[in-house]
Order: sequence, then C-alpha cells, then structure tokens
Amino acid sequence: MQFKIQAQDGHARAGIILTPHGIIHTPVFMPVGTLGSVKSLIPEDLKAIGAEIILANTYHLYLRPGHLLIKKLGGLHRFMHWEGPLLTDSGGYQIYSLAKKREIREEGVVFRSHIDGSSHFLTPEKIIEIQDCLGSDIIMCLDECPPYPIDYNYAENSLKLTTRWALQCKLAHKNKNQSLFGIVQGSFYPDLRVRAALSLIEIGFDGYAIGGLSVGEPKEKTWEAVEVCNEVLPRDKPRYAMGIGLPEDILEAVSRGVDMFDCVVPTRHARTGTLFTSFGKLSIKQARYTEDERPIDEACDCYVCKNYSRAYLRHLFISKELLAYRLNSYHNLYYYLNLMAEIREAIFKGTLAEFKKKFYERRKGKGEENAI
Amino acid sequence: MQFKIQAQDGHARAGIILTPHGIIHTPVFMPVGTLGSVKSLIPEDLKAIGAEIILANTYHLYLRPGHLLIKKLGGLHRFMHWEGPLLTDSGGYQIYSLAKKREIREEGVVFRSHIDGSSHFLTPEKIIEIQDCLGSDIIMCLDECPPYPIDYNYAENSLKLTTRWALQCKLAHKNKNQSLFGIVQGSFYPDLRVRAALSLIEIGFDGYAIGGLSVGEPKEKTWEAVEVCNEVLPRDKPRYAMGIGLPEDILEAVSRGVDMFDCVVPTRHARTGTLFTSFGKLSIKQARYTEDERPIDEACDCYVCKNYSRAYLRHLFISKELLAYRLNSYHNLYYYLNLMAEIREAIFKGTLAEFKKKFYERRKGKGEENAI
Repeated sequence: MQFKIQAQDGHARAGIILTPHGIIHTPVFMPVGTLGSVKSLIPEDLKAIGAEIILANTYHLYLRPGHLLIKKLGGLHRFMHWEGPLLTDSGGYQIYSLAKKREIREEGVVFRSHIDGSSHFLTPEKIIEIQDCLGSDIIMCLDECPPYPIDYNYAENSLKLTTRWALQCKLAHKNKNQSLFGIVQGSFYPDLRVRAALSLIEIGFDGYAIGGLSVGEPKEKTWEAVEVCNEVLPRDKPRYAMGIGLPEDILEAVSRGVDMFDCVVPTRHARTGTLFTSFGKLSIKQARYTEDERPIDEACDCYVCKNYSRAYLRHLFISKELLAYRLNSYHNLYYYLNLMAEIREAIFKGTLAEFKKKFYERRKGKGEENAI
Repeated sequence: MQFKIQAQDGHARAGIILTPHGIIHTPVFMPVGTLGSVKSLIPEDLKAIGAEIILANTYHLYLRPGHLLIKKLGGLHRFMHWEGPLLTDSGGYQIYSLAKKREIREEGVVFRSHIDGSSHFLTPEKIIEIQDCLGSDIIMCLDECPPYPIDYNYAENSLKLTTRWALQCKLAHKNKNQSLFGIVQGSFYPDLRVRAALSLIEIGFDGYAIGGLSVGEPKEKTWEAVEVCNEVLPRDKPRYAMGIGLPEDILEAVSRGVDMFDCVVPTRHARTGTLFTSFGKLSIKQARYTEDERPIDEACDCYVCKNYSRAYLRHLFISKELLAYRLNSYHNLYYYLNLMAEIREAIFKGTLAEFKKKFYERRKGKGEENAI
C-alpha cells in the first residue's frame, strides 16, 4: 500500500492510497457491506455513485458464512463480486456491542454469537488469520473498544491490552498484499490517546485508526480525541476515524486531518426513511410529501433524484416496498460520496473553510424541512 | 391498440401489440408491479431483462396512494418512471381475495380495505374511471372471480353479472388511449364459458382475458376452460390468461392459443428463495449449496448467473440481506422473459412441439435439484 498526500488545506489533506485492487482518493467514505453486501445495492451501483472502497465486517463474516468458506471460494472480492479495494474491520466493535456475552482475557476475547449463542474465542493472531482468508486490502488489529464514560484506570489497562494485541497482530501479519492498521484507543483521556498513538507508531503500521469514538460522548470530546491523535500520528500515513459519521462529523474530522471514514448511517437511515440532502435531513414518510412532485433534493444529480418524486418515494416507503430501501440507500450513499468529492475539491482549491461555511448555511432557513 | 399475428404454430400464435407506449411482442409475460413497483427492481432492470409491459393492480393503487394522486402527478407511467406499456387489472381478483369483507351487489362491490378496514364501493364505471386516472395502456373490466368449486347456478348468475358489468364498462370507457379487455368467466362449465365469451364478443372488446383460472381447480379443468374459450374468442384479438402461471403452465397455455400472461410467482418465489432454472426449481436456502461455486443455472446468461455463486446467494438469503430479494427477483424474471423469447422463436420456426419436449426433458434426470 502506498499513501501520497496531494494537497493540504489547514489540517485537511487530500491524497491517494494505492492498493492491490485499485486507487482510493482521500478523504474517502467507505460504504458498509457488513455481511458482504452493501444492503440492497450491487457493486455496479456502488461504482456508479463513485465508491472506491467498501468495508466489510470480520465478526459478521466469521460467523456467517465463515472465513474458511470465503477463502475456499476465492476470497471476499470474488465472493461478493466487488473488484475494488476492501477494508475489513477487526470485529472488536461488534464483539463488544453485538455478542451475547463476552469476556476479555489477556489472550483474546471469548464471546457468544448473537445469531445462535455458539461460543467463540478470538485472539489477535486469529483475527489476522481470518482477515487473511477474507483477502481484504486493508485489515485491522484486534482492539478493545471501551464504552463511555470509563474511569482512567480502566481506560489505561484497556489501552495497554489493545497495544499488546496490536504488537501480536503485527507479528502475525504475513500477507504482503494486505496493509495492517493499528487502532488508537484511550477513551477520552488526552494523555492516554497520546500514549496509545506513540506505542502504535513504535510498532509501525501502514495506517492508523482512531477507535472508540461515537460511543455516547459529547461532541467536544470526540474532536478533542481526534485532534490529540492527529497531532501525534505520522503525517505520511492514512488516518481513519472508525464509525464516523454524519455528514457534518465527516466535514469536521476532515478539517482535523482525518482521511478515511465508514458509517452505517447512510444505508441504515435509508431503511428508516431518513434521506440526506444539501439542506439537511428529510424524513420521506412525512405526510407533507404525499403530493410532492419534487425530487428528494433539487441540487442532487443522482439517479433517484433525476427520476422519482418525493410522492413516489413516500408511497414506496409507506407501503414497505423493497424498492424504497434500494432507492433510499442509493440516494444516501450518493449524497455521502458526492460530499467527499466536494470536500476533496475544496482541499485542492484551499477553500475548505468556505465550503464548510456554505455547508452549514445551506442547512439554515430550511427549518421546515430540517425539523426531523 | 393494434394486434397483428406474425406467425402461428398449431394453436400457438406469435404477434405484436402496438400501444401508445410501445410495442409488445407476444406471447408476452408481464412482470407484476402491484403497487407501482416490481418488487426490488427499477424500470431499467426490467428493460435490461427484456420486459415490454408491466402489470399494476388497480385495487392496490386505488387504496394506496390513490388514483387521484397518481393522476395529479402525471399518471402511473410518470409516477413509477416506467415509459413502456402498462396494463392495470380491474381489482376484481384482489377484492375477492384480499378485502376484509365484501358484498357483491348488482351495482358493484362493497368491501373493506385490507389495510385499514375503510369501506369502499366500486362500480364498473368507477373501475374505468380509476384506470383512466392511472393512464395505463390496457385496462380491464370489473368482474366477479368466483372460487372453485361452485355450483352451476351460482356460476351462471355470477357470469351474467360479470357480463352486465362488462357492458357498463364498455359504455363508460371513453379514453381512446386505453384499450379495454373483457374477462371471460363461467367457472369450469364449458357451456357457461362459451356463453360468456360470446356475450363479450357481442359487446366488442380490444382483447379478451380468461379469468377465474388457478383458483384451486385440477389442471385438466384449467386447460379445458382455456381451450373452450379460445375456440370461441376472435383470432384477431389478443387473449390473456390472467394469473398464469408457472413456466410449464405458460408453455401449455401458449400451445392452446394464449398471448398474454402475468403472475406474481417469479418475484414472490424469489423472495422465498425458490429460483427457476432450465432444469426445474432450485431452493437456494438448502444446505447443499453452502459451498457451491456454480451459478444458479449454467445455461442462464443473466447478470446474476454471470457474477454470483449459489454459495453467495445462499449466504445472502440465509442472512436475510435485502440484496438476496433483488438478485433472486432479477434472475427469476430473466428466466421468465427469456423463456417467452424462446417460445416466440419456436413459434416462428414452427418447432414449438419440439421445444416443449426439450423443455420437459431438461427437467428430468435432475431429480436431486428438482426435489423441491
């Protein structure tokens, strides 16, 4: 993997990442394909809307259909018919949030599957082995993702464990086609974040993720953690804010030097009828759209906005038609990927501050449509 | 509307229907877009797999979102972004099978909505008015679709009512852009079918549907009814067997002179994991496909068969991924539309009997995969 910064605007960076499956232009948003499919969409849709890399979940694929099966069938790219770059997470977050029971030991994590209650034991080495079987281009270390708030002692011990696991992952990582990222934890204690980042840098990774964000903390804490990490993290490696986030959060994080993002929000919101627009969010189920001939967003060039009215999309959603989820997902992901392209352009032009100002202004004065 | 027979092979006919929204090549299968969307698919998908006409349900659209709303928004074509021909049924079948309570009166049908229990009264004139608002190319008369079995007296009275309603529909039908089809009822009493057909011919319609089929009767009765009707129905008008059916049923009906078909089976089966292939049906959820690298059907050229393994499709289905319903629906409709193209070609070549023989032979000797 190679990473090259092409332009900078304040702390924000625009660059490219070269992977065995293609180029990624950063800052980048990665649509989430939890189980090996971005819900309701085909790879051709994702390419059409400008997706360059997809994220898949190690925890989910390990449980279903199993990494050995995927390996046998030629790896995840072939299995899901996605030819571009893939990133798989470590499963840590899912283990802490989804697994029925989990116990953290020095050697790894014991947990029960959220599907059938079966028992599993995942070590740092095992996580690398699973991701090797999946064949993703970027893989993540096993980490502990602590909740918020936790006391300093817990955070410190958790961080030390995550660091030891990171070293084990690094030692277990043999596949030269895969780039390994370390994950900076440390809860919301700035000194712990610094310590975590420095320890990971010492081990040396192809990129660095900032983990443990969006776990219920106030926004100032999120940005403080991001800023503290980015002051320490090497400039010449990609930085990935895991699970971030809403469009405004991405914009804020980019301004603070983050290069990579993933979030289930665009697709999950799509399935509950919340659509992203240049003037804020819009809940398509609302009665006021019953006869509305306009597209979701007149400023949007996507296939959905070019061909369907709010009235039709509301009808599909209210009627629980499968097409509703597909069209909503398509639009929301287009919105996200288009936003990333605009942000990237602004960085090249050195106009990110202005872009941010306009971004927030567009959302004002549309109180009615912004009410959700 | 114009109908022209281009070739004949035994009783089977191949022809074209000209409608204000385009040409239809018969024999034709119409994918069902109940509520104004063929479940999980966009019009571009349908065009890509060769669909030339879509069926939508008057009953469903009348209740949700309402015909007046659709009219206000420019008609059903524009509302659902389908530029090709559309056929709307009369809603009769849905009223008898879905409505909570229904009462048949001389003037029309009183029923309660299956959605919210609200009361509605639909007359023959109203059915024409609703379909006028929808703007479909082919519209259907209101009919009574009796269950099976019923006694002769009931069937006769029902048939007389359907005939009176057909006359009222004909008189109410003013929109020259819409072609009106009559529906032959008469249960499974050949003399009543003949009487029904003759009465409708006397009134004069642009095409004739054979209704009241697939209501639980044995197959011989179905074919007897189809044969009896087609002996009487005018050769120079399209004949439409409503709600038929499975691939083999379509083949049998075409051989008996039917030109048009619709059925929810390809899309409904898709959503329960049953896939159509050249060797019969395949239930993708079965464990034996867990590691199966092959496409659904090696003889199929569709997008799904070209790009995905049975193992992946099984994984999606088992995991309840939305993409499963989309890919399965795409494949099943492709199978149906490709079958129609093959049937049409065989009629032109005069080899339909041979085609039928091969069709049934391909399904033999694949006992294992045919077991569902």
